[in-house]
Amino acid sequence: MGDEGSLDSLSDKIAEFVSQREWEIFHNPKDLAIALSVEASELLELFQWRSREEVAELLPEIKQQIGEELADVFIYGLSMANSLSIDLEKAITRKLEKNEQRYPVDRFRGRAYE
Amino acid sequence: MGDEGSLDSLSDKIAEFVSQREWEIFHNPKDLAIALSVEASELLELFQWRSREEVAELLPEIKQQIGEELADVFIYGLSMANSLSIDLEKAITRKLEKNEQRYPVDRFRGRAYE
Amino acid sequence: MGDEGSLDSLSDKIAEFVSQREWEIFHNPKDLAIALSVEASELLELFQWRSREEVAELLPEIKQQIGEELADVFIYGLSMANSLSIDLEKAITRKLEKNEQRYPVDRFRGRAYE
Amino acid sequence: MGDEGSLDSLSDKIAEFVSQREWEIFHNPKDLAIALSVEASELLELFQWRSREEVAELLPEIKQQIGEELADVFIYGLSMANSLSIDLEKAITRKLEKNEQRYPVDRFRGRAYE
Repeated sequence: MGDEGSLDSLSDKIAEFVSQREWEIFHNPKDLAIALSVEASELLELFQWRSREEVAELLPEIKQQIGEELADVFIYGLSMANSLSIDLEKAITRKLEKNEQRYPVDRFRGRAYE
Repeated sequence: MGDEGSLDSLSDKIAEFVSQREWEIFHNPKDLAIALSVEASELLELFQWRSREEVAELLPEIKQQIGEELADVFIYGLSMANSLSIDLEKAITRKLEKNEQRYPVDRFRGRAYE
Repeated sequence: MGDEGSLDSLSDKIAEFVSQREWEIFHNPKDLAIALSVEASELLELFQWRSREEVAELLPEIKQQIGEELADVFIYGLSMANSLSIDLEKAITRKLEKNEQRYPVDRFRGRAYE
Repeated sequence: MGDEGSLDSLSDKIAEFVSQREWEIFHNPKDLAIALSVEASELLELFQWRSREEVAELLPEIKQQIGEELADVFIYGLSMANSLSIDLEKAITRKLEKNEQRYPVDRFRGRAYE
């Protein structure tokens, strides 16, 4: 039962949304993974055929759509974490620590690949 | 500057990670959308060829991997929100309100489609 | 210049379509990979929230849509092969030979994983 | 029973590969759509973090991998067409005709969007 901005409180809202509609059968992990992937592609579609420069120019126009598609991705991700009792905050923090090890600052400054 | 569990504090950590490596050039919206989509597929791959029942059986074995792939999805999503100054919490809350309207409880109880 | 049903003749038609519109700039490998991935997701979306059994029931209804989305995937794939001068038929034949080695019949009969 | 380079003859090889392993149960349309989408992402991953210019430079190095991932996409697509008795050549030809209508040369020369 976190405060407003926490992952926990968003999670709770989503769990309630799902439970009110008795959608637990649909929100099984496999179908949620599909849904998340489909939403990620709808997000990606906004950048299709556009160079980085064109994207930068178009941002004011497409920023709200980006926010909506991103929200869909997060909603399905939070629902998956709910349905599997995954502590998302812990998982993210751990992954960031792993990435700190994997990409040491001195070797990866300004480069995404070695 | 939120407390531990908030989206804001996770966002801050990710922004710092990116900035230390001077990775802002890579973390442009188009490439982040690609990265997020690629991670969503790695998550999806864990469920490939498996029926819902097999997934349920395998969960103890694959739950940690699911958590890690999900964390990757969230990290890129948070980084995209950072790079575009999108208020993710607000975007998610709004989308949930939209969904409340779009899927009224009485018409969608137990059904994902009309 | 193959006969009607060959990959070559389909390739030629697509190359002509692209060239008439001077779309070579858009049909660069990176954006084609995005487009192909987006179309693959539109195909996947047709199966979202549906069990294998429901999919089987719904097939008569969605078969044409499946064909159209699949066609989009192939069109972008053929265009990518065009733009990179990849001999797709050879690539597919080779991959099938690799898969023959990787999945010997006696060890993989009836199982997708070992 | 097409000649070497036709979609039909590739289809036949894939059907035989699947049948020898009794993999029809895995190669159901939903899981094939997942597999195709996962492979499309593996293809996309080769372009991640790279500008169009960097992609052009790297092509000699990554062209073979691109061919292999593209082959995987086609193999799953052909297997899906098999499992649903979809005439892929006809579906592709029709879609190209549709696209001819939708993107008239004079209005779309040099532009992907209106």
